[in-house]
Amino acid sequence: MTHFKQVALSHASRLINHGPTVLVTSAHGTARNIMAAAWSMPVEFTPPRIAIVIDKKTYTRELIAASGGFGVCIPCTTLAGLTHAVGSESGRTVDKFLHYGLKARIGPVLGMPLLEEGCAAWLECRLISEPHTEDAYDTCFAEVVAAAADERVFQNGHWRFTEDNVDLQTIHHLGGGNFVRPAGMFHAGDAAAKKP
Amino acid sequence: MTHFKQVALSHASRLINHGPTVLVTSAHGTARNIMAAAWSMPVEFTPPRIAIVIDKKTYTRELIAASGGFGVCIPCTTLAGLTHAVGSESGRTVDKFLHYGLKARIGPVLGMPLLEEGCAAWLECRLISEPHTEDAYDTCFAEVVAAAADERVFQNGHWRFTEDNVDLQTIHHLGGGNFVRPAGMFHAGDAAAKKP
Repeated sequence: MTHFKQVALSHASRLINHGPTVLVTSAHGTARNIMAAAWSMPVEFTPPRIAIVIDKKTYTRELIAASGGFGVCIPCTTLAGLTHAVGSESGRTVDKFLHYGLKARIGPVLGMPLLEEGCAAWLECRLISEPHTEDAYDTCFAEVVAAAADERVFQNGHWRFTEDNVDLQTIHHLGGGNFVRPAGMFHAGDAAAKKP
Repeated sequence: MTHFKQVALSHASRLINHGPTVLVTSAHGTARNIMAAAWSMPVEFTPPRIAIVIDKKTYTRELIAASGGFGVCIPCTTLAGLTHAVGSESGRTVDKFLHYGLKARIGPVLGMPLLEEGCAAWLECRLISEPHTEDAYDTCFAEVVAAAADERVFQNGHWRFTEDNVDLQTIHHLGGGNFVRPAGMFHAGDAAAKKP
């Protein structure tokens, strides 16, 4: 059974606000692909928009250009090995979903393949065509048109990272294949503004 | 004494690769400012380039437009309260460096004010003028021209987050004033690619 619940679009930016490494999924016709991306960020709350860096030489960019959409899936610690692996090979010659036995659900708005098992959340995104930044900086802008998250780790618009849900937590790439996960959640109000 | 050491420009992207919340510093003439930004990412390794979202209505954007540069300072857990505070007020009417007693050093290339006390690293950045994305998405592209980090938490081009340096760790905003820090560092090779 799935623990995924719909996330209000006004809360979608929070899913990537803290800088998780993500999986980018794409599809066009019968072709589909999945790759890793460490570089993404929200750029607007409402409408929810993001920017993400996807190399122009990738098969993913080809599929996004053809379909106008893509998925952003946020892997948990249990998928770190896979995240590293799918970032190191091209989907031009192999269907990585089949190769790794990944079960994809079909996105509600754009029909993008989305992972839930092993992931904490997903966002379905519609590309906003920006040929200059796509070319000069490999930076793609997109509007989030649907989002969902595992309610065991994201509830009422907020991440809840605790010692009892480590397997469901997001992963953050430090470079060189090293990752960290979020810990020690605290509220800034508890750390009064003070001189360093 | 400072524990800051120069970071090779080829490693600069790693400083923000894992999604820390940052402080943006700016200066022009005798005016200067500091604000918080949760949304930034690398876009290129070499030359090292980043993208960062800075609202067009801010005083910071005005100073950046005038000087062509800015600083990105990466606050530690001890500065979380301050990071939240400087993100909530404008520098048009108050010099926040004076107000909070912040000691700034002068950047080596562009002369931007940079924080070391209470921060884990800084990057000095030269704006790459992109009027359309600055206007449409509040997204500023920049080239990193100098970088440094506290050697107690960033060594030889790699972050080293352990239980013995919690006070020096980066902070990641979840929304609503809640932050997490990095923990449980692991290598993807230790988590074999497997079915979820």
